[in-house]
Amino acid sequence: MVDLQHIVDDLAERASSATERGRVATYIPQLAQVSPKHFGIAIVTQSGEEIVAGDTNVPFSIQSISKVFALTLALDKDGDGLWRRVGREPSGDPFNSIVQLEYEKGVPRNPFINAGALAVADVILSGQSPAGAVAQTLGFLRHVSGDETLQVDQAVAKSELDHGFRNMAMANFMKAHKNLENRPEDTLWVYVQNCAIAMSCRQLARAGRYLAWDGRIGPGGAPVTSSQRARRINALMLTCGHYDGSGEFAFRVGVPGKSGVGGGILAIVPGHASIACWSPGLNEVGNSLLGTEALEELTRRAGWSVFASNP
Amino acid sequence: MVDLQHIVDDLAERASSATERGRVATYIPQLAQVSPKHFGIAIVTQSGEEIVAGDTNVPFSIQSISKVFALTLALDKDGDGLWRRVGREPSGDPFNSIVQLEYEKGVPRNPFINAGALAVADVILSGQSPAGAVAQTLGFLRHVSGDETLQVDQAVAKSELDHGFRNMAMANFMKAHKNLENRPEDTLWVYVQNCAIAMSCRQLARAGRYLAWDGRIGPGGAPVTSSQRARRINALMLTCGHYDGSGEFAFRVGVPGKSGVGGGILAIVPGHASIACWSPGLNEVGNSLLGTEALEELTRRAGWSVFASNP
Amino acid sequence: MVDLQHIVDDLAERASSATERGRVATYIPQLAQVSPKHFGIAIVTQSGEEIVAGDTNVPFSIQSISKVFALTLALDKDGDGLWRRVGREPSGDPFNSIVQLEYEKGVPRNPFINAGALAVADVILSGQSPAGAVAQTLGFLRHVSGDETLQVDQAVAKSELDHGFRNMAMANFMKAHKNLENRPEDTLWVYVQNCAIAMSCRQLARAGRYLAWDGRIGPGGAPVTSSQRARRINALMLTCGHYDGSGEFAFRVGVPGKSGVGGGILAIVPGHASIACWSPGLNEVGNSLLGTEALEELTRRAGWSVFASNP
Amino acid sequence: MVDLQHIVDDLAERASSATERGRVATYIPQLAQVSPKHFGIAIVTQSGEEIVAGDTNVPFSIQSISKVFALTLALDKDGDGLWRRVGREPSGDPFNSIVQLEYEKGVPRNPFINAGALAVADVILSGQSPAGAVAQTLGFLRHVSGDETLQVDQAVAKSELDHGFRNMAMANFMKAHKNLENRPEDTLWVYVQNCAIAMSCRQLARAGRYLAWDGRIGPGGAPVTSSQRARRINALMLTCGHYDGSGEFAFRVGVPGKSGVGGGILAIVPGHASIACWSPGLNEVGNSLLGTEALEELTRRAGWSVFASNP
Repeated sequence: MVDLQHIVDDLAERASSATERGRVATYIPQLAQVSPKHFGIAIVTQSGEEIVAGDTNVPFSIQSISKVFALTLALDKDGDGLWRRVGREPSGDPFNSIVQLEYEKGVPRNPFINAGALAVADVILSGQSPAGAVAQTLGFLRHVSGDETLQVDQAVAKSELDHGFRNMAMANFMKAHKNLENRPEDTLWVYVQNCAIAMSCRQLARAGRYLAWDGRIGPGGAPVTSSQRARRINALMLTCGHYDGSGEFAFRVGVPGKSGVGGGILAIVPGHASIACWSPGLNEVGNSLLGTEALEELTRRAGWSVFASNP
Repeated sequence: MVDLQHIVDDLAERASSATERGRVATYIPQLAQVSPKHFGIAIVTQSGEEIVAGDTNVPFSIQSISKVFALTLALDKDGDGLWRRVGREPSGDPFNSIVQLEYEKGVPRNPFINAGALAVADVILSGQSPAGAVAQTLGFLRHVSGDETLQVDQAVAKSELDHGFRNMAMANFMKAHKNLENRPEDTLWVYVQNCAIAMSCRQLARAGRYLAWDGRIGPGGAPVTSSQRARRINALMLTCGHYDGSGEFAFRVGVPGKSGVGGGILAIVPGHASIACWSPGLNEVGNSLLGTEALEELTRRAGWSVFASNP
Repeated sequence: MVDLQHIVDDLAERASSATERGRVATYIPQLAQVSPKHFGIAIVTQSGEEIVAGDTNVPFSIQSISKVFALTLALDKDGDGLWRRVGREPSGDPFNSIVQLEYEKGVPRNPFINAGALAVADVILSGQSPAGAVAQTLGFLRHVSGDETLQVDQAVAKSELDHGFRNMAMANFMKAHKNLENRPEDTLWVYVQNCAIAMSCRQLARAGRYLAWDGRIGPGGAPVTSSQRARRINALMLTCGHYDGSGEFAFRVGVPGKSGVGGGILAIVPGHASIACWSPGLNEVGNSLLGTEALEELTRRAGWSVFASNP
Repeated sequence: MVDLQHIVDDLAERASSATERGRVATYIPQLAQVSPKHFGIAIVTQSGEEIVAGDTNVPFSIQSISKVFALTLALDKDGDGLWRRVGREPSGDPFNSIVQLEYEKGVPRNPFINAGALAVADVILSGQSPAGAVAQTLGFLRHVSGDETLQVDQAVAKSELDHGFRNMAMANFMKAHKNLENRPEDTLWVYVQNCAIAMSCRQLARAGRYLAWDGRIGPGGAPVTSSQRARRINALMLTCGHYDGSGEFAFRVGVPGKSGVGGGILAIVPGHASIACWSPGLNEVGNSLLGTEALEELTRRAGWSVFASNP
């Protein structure tokens, strides 16, 4: 029997002494102020037990991890109509590339690059106010994490909007291709608010449970989405969840995951665990350096892999 | 209990009456002569049982499916040194694109696009003759399939070489970047011979067993490669195994797979099944049209998905 | 002695009966309302004579032709500092491509593609109000054309702003790369106002005189810019003045020229003539179809070419 | 009256003391052995006078300058049919890029990038032996330069062939797109032999006379090609003659020119001069560093520019 507590304690200890910690994202000034010293990991197991180590109660900006939850909402709202507006293929490009958008006439490659997430935000926004759209996403996250205290960090949101020229470029580019229904500035606002939601590792691991258990909040829990939809979101996380490092993550860690530039990673071991890991320093493709390493060691030692005969 | 025989009989029957069958590949003239009417599917289950329907004993050109086996050989020969010469990321490009090679200075994105497979062939070739390299690949396939009758279809090989200007361009381009050790024409010859190996669905499903059971030929069988390596090859199949349709295959079918322009697909359900499916007509990204549809229905009805809590 | 009047009469007559007239630009709705039946041509010769045929007094939207005049202004304001922000090479891309901007980190390839013209507008705008910047460009054009009646067509400007998402994307993208000093919406406003200036062929041919005579308004006329600068602007017109049709224009017409999506073309025969031609229908790369044909025949019959021993 | 001898003496003297001389091309090992100390310039004027300074009798490898002469031959052989196989637009890419070939389906952008010159060589080769094709090009150059001693430098040719994997890649890529009639290895051989022709500045300046005088070898001389064709070749030299530095050359030097990686540049001042300049060190886009500077100063001091009212 694997002793998960022992493993995560090892991981936290090793992380505390790591000298190479990656670089904290600077393009959102507010994020650049976060100390690279943080490290936390939280696991919710099949039995509902929570195994944690490190800074697991410190909220951080979930950033692109919010795209997983927004995608769930948009699919539940719009169904497969969403797929007319965004693809399902890895991009082979950085998260914020606009090149692909031009070659493919304004249709983002997948919902986890920034342009794709703008299309998802646009779906959520249609038919309601920007504030309503954000409240809906936040409400969804409060529901799946079982935590009514979750909030948008408005300092982060403002900082991102003030420096969000590149995302504004993408929103306008998609609007030019008629792939936004709403005003670019409104869609971008919703997107940025969602990204600025703050969560701790513990909260995030809880929020991911429905992906590990076929759409239900834990084994036999309340249904959040269909089992097919949960599986498909996992598939997208595996192929596209780490931008141009997605293949590497699948190769090394072996389970679906989604990273954010705040340094968080949500990893799903279907049937076994929902895991959240956080360390602010990023590697050269924009994913948490220590977080990725910790998850690689965790899955190796726990024997977790969707590619093994006995996952 | 799922009745697999019933499912595959359904699939074969439906395929026999399908009107939209895709288009048989034409860029290798010999392949263009294959009738699009064929359809076959073979499953090797955990118990070793073989469940088949359709043309499961007709040999077809495995083409790019050979890249999976060549990769296994090259990794066993060269270890992780291979990864200095080829990446592990989806390409976001067609199988035969040369654009990425220029942007990334002669390093192919992954071992399953043509350029990556040339690097793999080059590793196998180094230190032996071209004929020896092909004999080694063929010997490996005979071993894992338990079938000493496997052969290269020389008519296909000749046809491919006579029309292989694009692959010759890639080999020369990689040589210009010093990412081939051997002469481009020799490496290309090995690559083409490997692609021209002919196998039936039944033979191919047997050959894939080591990927479904952690590197062993069936549960508890003879070891072929390490369990970690088998998992990692599965990961690459999931993220890169269907060229620019890899995300779609993961989304719809939910298990690792590798396609070939001959119309074959090898699909792996770790711990449960090794599956080979064949129908020569291709969809617009170059993967078997009916084969993909059959695998989607099979995994759905069998409840197989690496993304489910109970795969 | 060449009879220019005879030639232009021929050109106008032929144009009046042409059946293939190209397609009027539709991405600015106001421009789409212009009749494709128009054709006009005006030549100002070395002696100051004006030779005209067709609709030479009908004002049209000069659109990108304004980039030539704005570049002159920006160079006179900022000197060679401008070249830190924009290149001098043909782009090999359509006028509104954003791909190159990403590959080259926000630095447009030349001042005649839209992104480059935004950088030029940004230089003019710095240190003054948007309205002041537009007044300066308009004042410059009134001066060089000797016509105080020139105006911005505000209906066109509004139409372009309402549908200018793509240019807004570029402005934001350049801002993200710190290659705009001012607010993207302000720079875009100046750019759009400049493009919406309305001129007739006669007015435009007069405005181009300083380029044909080394920076002076006609031979021995008032200096507008230095002779070196006038020559260099001609060089840029020749290599970059027709987007991805620049090589073709140089090959067929043989003199520097600048086109606009309103269907106008300004062509310069240094030492001999300033020519304006207008026909609203565009060819597939966005340049006036009949205008280009007329200029090709005119230069051939007049023996004008900067590449001939006796131009 | 400009004293050209005084100018070129100045240029040679300045070049002899220049410390920043660029980098000699290394991708053809034989070229890498040439001393960067060389500098030569030769001008043939309208009166037929030859004004020279520096190493004007030392033969160097003309490399891509041969593309101008090969183009003349191919157009005289095939007429405008050539333009179905190669475009007339600047590429916005380095001389040896293969990216554009893929995006534009095997049709090179212009005859002066390597791929375009392969198409030109293929036209010359069709209907005769490779040796015959080279003899024809050499015969043309002997004719226009009036020098029967011109030869291919076989040591350079062999060195280039031994390291020509990238050009071999392009030839195969074009063959895959059916844009080569002959075997890739044969077309490449002709191309390489043409590039390896050795000429001195004096010989090269003489060879360029037909471009400066409307297709005739000097004013009133023997016709080589039509005046229209000579002008159009000049147009292509101006827009495409310096790869991705063509716009810069037109901007700074102001006349048509063609460079080679051997460090030579042929510059044409229509009606005034044919100029050859040579210095082996290249700038970052692959054109002679000192050669470009010398030509810029020469045209400035001589008042030569195709963009001036009095060229």
